[in-house]
Amino acid sequence: MFHGMTRAARYLGARTLAVAEARPVPPAPGQVRIDVAYTGICGTDLHILHGAMDHRVRVPAVIGHEMSGRIAELGEGVRGHAVGDPVTVMPLDWCGQCPACRVGHTHICHRLNFIGVDSTGSMQGSWTVPATILVPLPADLALEHAALIEPTAVAVHDVRRSRLAAGEHAVVIGAGPVGLLIATVARARGAAVTVLELDAHRRAVAAGLGLTTVDPAAVDVARQVREQTGDAGADVVFEVSGSAAAVRTATDLLAVRGRLVMVAIHSRPREVDLHRVFWRELEMIGVRVYQRDDYEEAIRLVRDGHVPSDRLISRIVALDDVAEAFEALEAGGDVKILLDCGGAR
Amino acid sequence: MFHGMTRAARYLGARTLAVAEARPVPPAPGQVRIDVAYTGICGTDLHILHGAMDHRVRVPAVIGHEMSGRIAELGEGVRGHAVGDPVTVMPLDWCGQCPACRVGHTHICHRLNFIGVDSTGSMQGSWTVPATILVPLPADLALEHAALIEPTAVAVHDVRRSRLAAGEHAVVIGAGPVGLLIATVARARGAAVTVLELDAHRRAVAAGLGLTTVDPAAVDVARQVREQTGDAGADVVFEVSGSAAAVRTATDLLAVRGRLVMVAIHSRPREVDLHRVFWRELEMIGVRVYQRDDYEEAIRLVRDGHVPSDRLISRIVALDDVAEAFEALEAGGDVKILLDCGGAR
Repeated sequence: MFHGMTRAARYLGARTLAVAEARPVPPAPGQVRIDVAYTGICGTDLHILHGAMDHRVRVPAVIGHEMSGRIAELGEGVRGHAVGDPVTVMPLDWCGQCPACRVGHTHICHRLNFIGVDSTGSMQGSWTVPATILVPLPADLALEHAALIEPTAVAVHDVRRSRLAAGEHAVVIGAGPVGLLIATVARARGAAVTVLELDAHRRAVAAGLGLTTVDPAAVDVARQVREQTGDAGADVVFEVSGSAAAVRTATDLLAVRGRLVMVAIHSRPREVDLHRVFWRELEMIGVRVYQRDDYEEAIRLVRDGHVPSDRLISRIVALDDVAEAFEALEAGGDVKILLDCGGAR
Repeated sequence: MFHGMTRAARYLGARTLAVAEARPVPPAPGQVRIDVAYTGICGTDLHILHGAMDHRVRVPAVIGHEMSGRIAELGEGVRGHAVGDPVTVMPLDWCGQCPACRVGHTHICHRLNFIGVDSTGSMQGSWTVPATILVPLPADLALEHAALIEPTAVAVHDVRRSRLAAGEHAVVIGAGPVGLLIATVARARGAAVTVLELDAHRRAVAAGLGLTTVDPAAVDVARQVREQTGDAGADVVFEVSGSAAAVRTATDLLAVRGRLVMVAIHSRPREVDLHRVFWRELEMIGVRVYQRDDYEEAIRLVRDGHVPSDRLISRIVALDDVAEAFEALEAGGDVKILLDCGGAR
């Protein structure tokens, strides 16, 4: 309900988040105002809180981009949407003019505005955005689950770029939320999936999703993967851990013509075994966000239960408790925490 | 002519090559004996002479694999070939049983016998090989030029793996023989090609082939490539230099979704800017030798003059002068030196 004022969580810099009243922004022509139901907390949001993205985030900043909600108000000229429609967003605003946009790679626009990082996000009850970023949701999809569409689209994009086929063997290094989503999306494609994770709790979560898990500190993983694959090696490895050691492990595990998908963001250059890249004709594939097709598949996978939403959402907390939610995520033990933004009751 | 004995150059270990008489080997069933016309000296042969491949080369070893000649004698059961036919070889002997062979990647067989390295090569007047590795040559192709088919097939393979299309912009780092062949093959595909090379003499050779050359020590290459490509960057970079710095340059030069083809053999792990790989969705593509299709295209390109054979062959020396030929190559100044093996007059 909209009673004139709403609440918003703001990053103030210096590891500080504060929740306060906020005035909803009336939609300009071409915009819509959304009553935000839920916003998931992403690893990127944690990076922002740590100050690691202060070069991009202008404080005070409402952050957040994994969301679900209902349309509350249409700006002038917006067609094809109606008040009350359930929606999520693809939080990319591209220029349309740069070399990447001109050849259709709009999601890697040279001047990409990633909404929720470079501009105002969804950790608030009422959010006004360009109608172009709306993604309609099926009526039968719970809004809690719909808050997982955006990270699922990341996973779908990564799996699509890997060209993973049914019957192939995929290894996922790192069982955080994105790693678990990649593993479940890969499984839904008919691949055999092994998840490598050092942390016992995360391994247990992955195992709880029915995934094959391995502790790479305890097992000779290369040997095990060779045994699992008739001495061939893995067809695809998804590097989702961000560690230097994992980059080495990844090339060791791959079969001839295997594909290494670099999902984690490595802020420093990493040593790569280029001899192995040559010897086995490996490919390394960079991946960044998603494209609209990825959203459509993500919606199908979440709606049809291939993505085990209820197991991935470890808790839902009130927007006013956002600081504690971030602390809980940092402490580990949770997979995905949703903020109840209160905008779509 | 075959008068009972021939001559062969042998690697004896310890940086030593010696030429001596050799007895031709009668072809066993399924084999052919070739009168070898020419054998080109490859970078791999230099590595062998330096002792860098002693773990694979059993001394005394006749090395060499870039060759042309005529069939001298057919073993029992060999069909589809005749004495006097001009031929080259694709010097790969695979097992047919390993995981790579089973899915058709025979050129990356787990137990690949690279003929001329792992077994006896063509630096001799008479050479006996399995008929399966023969590649027939057109009658109108000079045998001198035909000795360039094998390294041209390397270049064709690398360009094919890059998915380079007409109108795209390619950068080749390193203007040795393979770099020059890649550049000319890329140009034949209709790509705009820029060659980066630190050595002034090699730059002059590349310029003499009509290629655009840049000294990366004197010019801000990234800026220049941006200017040449309307701020997009290069679609494909071929790393043919083997240097750590080139790996960094390569990722800097690439456009969104650009492809980095790792042609040079980096025996040590190299630092790779994985953040750039993520940010621009780059691909790194490993390449190794060639497949049969690459030979067919290489023959067309050499025969039709797209590969400027006469300019790439800097001299032809007698087999007996093999040691001096290797010394000349090491000293620099030559592109490709052919050994006249005397077997097909």
